[in-house]
Formats: sequence, structure tokens, C-alpha cells
Amino acid sequence: MNYKMMGRFIGHILLVEAVFMVPSLIIGLVQQEDMACMGFAASICITLLLSLLLLLFCRGSRRGFKAREGLVCVSFSWIVMSLLGALPFYISREIPFYLDALFETVAGFTTTGASILPEVESLSMSILYWRSFTHWLGGMGVLVFVLAVGASGESSKGFTMHLLRAESPGPQVGKLVPKMKKTAEILYLIYILLTVVDIVLLLFGGMSLFEAVCTAFGTAGTGGFGIKNDSIAGYSPYIQNVCTIFMLLFGVNFSCYYMLLLRQFGSVLKDEELRLYLGVVIGSIVLITLNLGGFYATLGETLRHVAFQVASIVTTTGYATTDFDLWPSFSKAIILGLMVIGASAGSTGGGFKCARVLIIVKGLRRNLRRAISPQKVQVVRVNGHMVDEKVLENTNAYLAAYVIILFASAIVVSLEPYSVMTSFTAVLSCFNNIGPGLEAVGPTCNFGGFGVLSKVVLIVDMLAGRLEIFPILILFSRSTWGRLKG
Amino acid sequence: MNYKMMGRFIGHILLVEAVFMVPSLIIGLVQQEDMACMGFAASICITLLLSLLLLLFCRGSRRGFKAREGLVCVSFSWIVMSLLGALPFYISREIPFYLDALFETVAGFTTTGASILPEVESLSMSILYWRSFTHWLGGMGVLVFVLAVGASGESSKGFTMHLLRAESPGPQVGKLVPKMKKTAEILYLIYILLTVVDIVLLLFGGMSLFEAVCTAFGTAGTGGFGIKNDSIAGYSPYIQNVCTIFMLLFGVNFSCYYMLLLRQFGSVLKDEELRLYLGVVIGSIVLITLNLGGFYATLGETLRHVAFQVASIVTTTGYATTDFDLWPSFSKAIILGLMVIGASAGSTGGGFKCARVLIIVKGLRRNLRRAISPQKVQVVRVNGHMVDEKVLENTNAYLAAYVIILFASAIVVSLEPYSVMTSFTAVLSCFNNIGPGLEAVGPTCNFGGFGVLSKVVLIVDMLAGRLEIFPILILFSRSTWGRLKG
Repeated sequence: MNYKMMGRFIGHILLVEAVFMVPSLIIGLVQQEDMACMGFAASICITLLLSLLLLLFCRGSRRGFKAREGLVCVSFSWIVMSLLGALPFYISREIPFYLDALFETVAGFTTTGASILPEVESLSMSILYWRSFTHWLGGMGVLVFVLAVGASGESSKGFTMHLLRAESPGPQVGKLVPKMKKTAEILYLIYILLTVVDIVLLLFGGMSLFEAVCTAFGTAGTGGFGIKNDSIAGYSPYIQNVCTIFMLLFGVNFSCYYMLLLRQFGSVLKDEELRLYLGVVIGSIVLITLNLGGFYATLGETLRHVAFQVASIVTTTGYATTDFDLWPSFSKAIILGLMVIGASAGSTGGGFKCARVLIIVKGLRRNLRRAISPQKVQVVRVNGHMVDEKVLENTNAYLAAYVIILFASAIVVSLEPYSVMTSFTAVLSCFNNIGPGLEAVGPTCNFGGFGVLSKVVLIVDMLAGRLEIFPILILFSRSTWGRLKG
Repeated sequence: MNYKMMGRFIGHILLVEAVFMVPSLIIGLVQQEDMACMGFAASICITLLLSLLLLLFCRGSRRGFKAREGLVCVSFSWIVMSLLGALPFYISREIPFYLDALFETVAGFTTTGASILPEVESLSMSILYWRSFTHWLGGMGVLVFVLAVGASGESSKGFTMHLLRAESPGPQVGKLVPKMKKTAEILYLIYILLTVVDIVLLLFGGMSLFEAVCTAFGTAGTGGFGIKNDSIAGYSPYIQNVCTIFMLLFGVNFSCYYMLLLRQFGSVLKDEELRLYLGVVIGSIVLITLNLGGFYATLGETLRHVAFQVASIVTTTGYATTDFDLWPSFSKAIILGLMVIGASAGSTGGGFKCARVLIIVKGLRRNLRRAISPQKVQVVRVNGHMVDEKVLENTNAYLAAYVIILFASAIVVSLEPYSVMTSFTAVLSCFNNIGPGLEAVGPTCNFGGFGVLSKVVLIVDMLAGRLEIFPILILFSRSTWGRLKG
């Protein structure tokens, strides 16, 4: 294990994190929020100190980085980042228990948006800003950010490759251009651009700049932390529709936007994942609208609520304008299905990802064809390209890990005095980085009532979901640590 | 498609079915159950007639049988067998609607044990006997029976191989001896022997011969249809314990018994699937007992109920001595986990099967090791033997199909006016051939309240579960039928 290089990289991450805490401190100073200011000032000092110590003591060692070291490095970065990101909540006493603060921070960085807070309007503005900003930073990935802004000389080729592979969502690495640093830059540029457009459109709807920025952060990262107790329900239909559209936009594979910039409209239209994603969205909206019938006053209102909730769940954002836990069973079952499917690979959304669904379904059809005519060679193609057998295998392994973790976590969480449905959907929601579940963790409820063990399990689930399982899973594998002596 | 050979084979199956209806007719005559006698007499005539017509018109054509034809043949056999097996219920008017009768019959043959009847004690004895006998016949498989008793000249080598592969549960074909016919014979001999021992032990407990036979049929096939409204709850602790032990015995891979007969005790003890199966059973019993605490009066009573319910669910039998829907969430979550895992491959039990869990987990660990050290060649071993990559792929495809069918069915069934939990566990229960689910389909409830669409979906799920998905799935594939013209 190349601890020096890992330490140096985590040092860089913490440096970035400390810098990103400064805007919150400034807001606190302007708003004269004393406790929050103290929280941020102390957190910045601690984070900065740790960062400098790491950068100082982990110099040297430029040997290559191995695959497993990339995975371990990503996991550790996220864990350390969360541990320190929780400090402002804790030191400011706005979340008095550290585990709760950590839960909230992990829910922020992983863009889950599951909150332990029964209400958020009493929080200070600086804390609310930091809470929403964790979504924005976690959405595209802080390591990707470090790659985008970092000196390209610092990191060897294999290093960046392994990191990006571990942090970017989806079954295949979304390499837009040959150079990783350039790819990271393009991704962040598109991300910033879309966020700014979202903010402007929200401002047009009459939001204050603070509200617009926080709401856009939650939308862009597909996070879902709101700054109002009723999430987005209290805003105008215009603002709700803007949110619906931007949630959907941030759930699209960013390589589609890059292709649009290159004017490759044909490839975008033919993209199979995009088609599946839009098909799932439109199909769900139609089915739920039919199922709801006269649940809301008018068809327009029904469509607005349904489109919002479908977009919010499929992109794993978790904003709400209505309580879907009150919908009939068929609609709730579709919502559960959307929770699992999730957004596109290479987007900021979570879940199992449309690309994986595509590969799994096509792999299954291949196996069926093989059972029907065993002598023929059958390959799996996505967008006309043959899918590598390794990718197929990894996607299948992903499904296996997904199911096992889901069941194991749900069984542990069901030790809580809640219904089985609550435990299962709490895990489903955290693991897929969504936010709300059903029943006691429905859109109008929160995770504050869970015990320590459940919170720890859900924190691990959120991280595993955001980092796509394997980086977290190998932390528990003996072979990762076994050969240290060798 | 070799329709002639398929027709001839289905003709044989129906002949066997007609012969197996005779004992019920005799019981009806002895008990003077007029309507039931008429039902069986008419059903036997119709089944016999159809069988003879098929055998008469489908002579000739001895060309080889292809893989897909084996799969299609198995599916059709089961469908036709169920359609005709439902006739006695319907003609005797004991189940006045044909779809309900079909549901009950499919639940019987697939050893699901999900009933649409609110109470069974008013049924005639001959009908109760037939209902329980469908479990026994479906448990080991009627095609396996035909192979065991059939003339070995009749069927070409590829034919029997494909059939046995399609009907026997598990990821690999359990070929005990090189000759398929011999294997089928050995399986049925063990099956009959165990059933007889079970009957004798139940008789010792004070059951009447009729009760003992019916209860043993339900146990042997891991079916779960009882002849009492309260299932096994009203019987003595001794009988309940006998049921527990025999349910567990019928959930063991029958090749273990064959190895015992060959005195290969070492191989049995080292069998990884057996260890996993027993580990899951014992682990679940311990955890649920701890979780239940003082739910029952004494620890002995708790252990008896817990062991019974765990055995009943993991072997997918579905008998009950208590209502586990009243247990706390943790226990219910474990029950849900057991529903999915299911019994061993090569047993009469259903579910995902321990062997597949083993292969999936080992495959996942292989992929993790590969991510950690990509340069090393990694193989998956079970019981010391390398698992073929094809088997791994098929097991992964099985998992994919399993998850997709589960979600798709549950969404359709949730159109019913029940809770999401009811819909999901109804599908889980039927698809894994268990019987009871949670809430409105809990151990004290039945499936009678579901609508036509849900019943059809659940019937397909039961068949898909029993035949292990692929034979049913390829009926819906275009390529199965597409090349008929060619």
C-alpha cells in the first residue's frame, strides 16, 4: 500500500475542503451567526492543519499506483472528508451529536439528502449553505475536482485513471477525451454552467439569491437537502417545474452534453441509455397519473406533482412537493422501482443506473438466446459497440453485491421498532442515495429516530452507494490488507 | 420445433396424471362423495382421452431433440398438466371458478401451497387428497417420474438430458450416475423412502392414515397445503417437530442422500451447500429466538415455533404453527431473507437455492480479488471443483431474471387494493413457491381476494419459480418461435 501517495492525495482533498468552507464562514460573518462562525472557523483550522501535516509528512514515493490503492484511496478520501465536513454542524451545536452530524454530512456528500433533522428552518444560513454545498461538491465528486484543478504533473497516469474509475458513477469509465485531467475539466465546466442556468431561472421565479443557490446545489448534485421544512412544496408551480426539468437534466449522462457541444446530435438521439432513461421517466409519469385519477384537483396539478416526484426519485434527488406515501400501492410500487433503477451513468444521480439495467437486460437476453441456440456465438452490444465480457461480469457482480448489501443492511436496520417496510425502504433510500423512503421514513419524516447501529449501517450504505460498492467493499476484504507484509 | 415428439411426451405425462387421479376417485367412492367422484371420473376420462389422442397422432419423427425444444416441452407439460389437474376441483364444484381451481392446482404442482380457499375443512376427502398429492408429484417432478418409469428406448439421450436439466432445481444438473434414467430412478426411490418414514412417524404421533399421508405429501414436496384450517398449529408438539425435521430433510440436496447410501460420509460433511443451508437454518433460529424474547410462554415453545417456521420458509414449504406476521420486524426481515434464499439445489424445495447463493457470493469475491490484483488468474471453486464460467454466467443471468420478474410482477399485483408489502410478499411467496407472505397474504390469510390479472401473474410466477425461470421465459422470446419457418 502506497500510504505516502495516498496521504498526499488526501491532504489535497482536505485543502480543497477547507477552502470550500470559507464561503460559509463569510455568510456567517455577514449574518452575524456567532456560533456558526465559530464552528466554521474552528473546522477550517482543523482541516487545514491536518491537510498541511499530511502534505508535509507524505512527500516522496513516486512509484506507480495500483488498482486497489486507487480504490482504497477514494474510500478513505470520502471517509476523512465526511468526518471533517461534519465538524461545523457539531461545533456550532446546531446538530449536538457528532454521529448525527456525520450522518447529515455523509447524506450531503453522497447526495442522498436523508436528514436526521425534524425541521431545518431554525438552522443558521451559513449552516444551511454548507449543508446544500456538500451536495454540489459530492455530486460530481471532489476527487474529480482535484483532478480538474490539480497540477497534471503531480499525478501519474495510472493514478488518475484509477481514481476517476472509482469515483465516477457507471459500469464503464466515462472518458470524454484521452486526457483524464481534461475530462475532469470538461465535466466540471458543464456542471457549473448547468448550475448557473438553474440559479438564474430560479431567480426569475422570485426566489432570493440564497434560496436559489441552495436549491440549485441540491438539484445539481441530485441531493435533496432543502432549506424549507416542506421541501419544494411551498414554492410556485413555476419553480417546481424548473426543479423537475433540472433534476432530469442532471440525471443525464454528462457525455451526452459533451456530444451536444461537439454537435453530434445524432449520437445523442440514438444513445440507448438516454432512451431507456427518458422511457422510464415518461412511462412512470403516465402510469402514475392514470393510477392517481382524481387524487389532486386538476389534471395539471396531478401531472406537475407526478412529474416532480418521478424526476426526484429516478434521479435520486429526493426533493418533494407532495407526500407520495399517501399514493395508492401501484404508484408506490413504481416509485420503489424507480428508486432501484436510478439515474444515468456519468450523471450526478445515484441508484443502480440505467446503463447497468441495459447491460443486465441485454446480458440476460443473450443467455436466453444461447439457451435457445447453443451453437451460435452471441455478443452484447450497447450503442452499436460490443460490451466487453469483463464489463458484463462486473455488472453482474455489482448486482449480486447490491442485492446482498441491501438485504443484510435491511435485516440489521429492522432491529429498530419500525415496520419492515420502513427498514427496507430506509436502506433502499440511503443505498441508492435518494433521501426519503416509505412509511416512517417517508417524504414528510426523517431519520432522527434511528439508533446508533442503524445510523452507522446507513452511513456505510450511503458511501457504498455513492462510490458504487467496490471501493467500500474492498476495505472489508482480507486480500486488500493481507499482502502488506509481502 | 419437433411438435410430434413433444406431443408424444405430453401424452405420456397425461397418462401418468390420469392414473394418479384414480386413488382420489377410490377415496371418493369409499367416502361416498358423489360430486367429487363425478369430478374425478370426468377428469380421468378427459385426461385419458387427450393423452390417447396425443399418443395416437404424434407417432413417428425420431430426430434429435434440441435444447430449446426440451425447455419448451417442459413448460408445456406443466401448463397442460395444471390445466387438466384443475378439472376435479372445478367439475366437483368445490372450487366453482376455473381460474381459482387452476391457481390452486398450479400452487399444488409447483409446491407453492398458496391457496385461494378461506378454509379447507369443508372440502371432501378425495379432493383434499388430490390437492396434497399434487405437491408430492410436483416436488420431485412429473417428468423425472416419466423418465424413471418410462422405457429407456423411447427417449434419445439428448432428450432426457434436456428435460432433466429443465425440470430439476439448481444451477447444475444433478447427475448421480451416468445414465439419466437410472438417476431419475434413484431420486424417486429416495423420495418414496423418506415419504414413507415420514408417514410412519406421523402415525406414531396419533394422526389418522389419511392425515399422515396428506401431511407427508405436503412436507415431501415442500408444498404446504394443509388439511386443517390452522395448518399444523392444532397438532401435538411431537407432530410439529416431526414436520420440522422432515421439511428440513426434504430441503437437502438429494445427491447427499445418494452419497450417504454409498457411504461417502466425508463428502457429505464437507459439502459446501449443505453447510450453508444448515448454517442459514441454525443462524436464523438463534437470531429469531433472541429477537422474540418472551413472545411465547417458554423457551421450549419459542424454539419449537421458530424452528418450525424457519424450516417451513427456508424449504419453501409454507406450513405454519403460528402467525409470523405478528413477530417483530427483525424476525420478519429474516423470514423475508429466508424466502429468497430457499432450499438446496437438487431438493424438492424452491427459492433462489443455496447453491446459487454460494456461486453468486464466490463469484463476487472473485471479482473483488480481481479488482485488488488484476494480474492474477482467479477461479471459483465449489466443493473443490472449479465452477465452469458458463455456470457462473447462467447463475448471474438467473439473478438478473429473478430481480426483474420480481419487480415487474409486484408492480402489476400492486394494482390490487392492498398494501405494497402485501403485493411484494405475495409475489415473493408465489415466485419462490412458498405459500404465505406478509400482511394480507400472511400465514392466516389466503389469495382468494386477488383479481383475475393478479392471479394470472401469480400463476405464471409460480410456474416460473418451479421451473427455474428460463423454460417459462423462452416461451416469451421471439427467437424461440422465429425460426419455425426456416
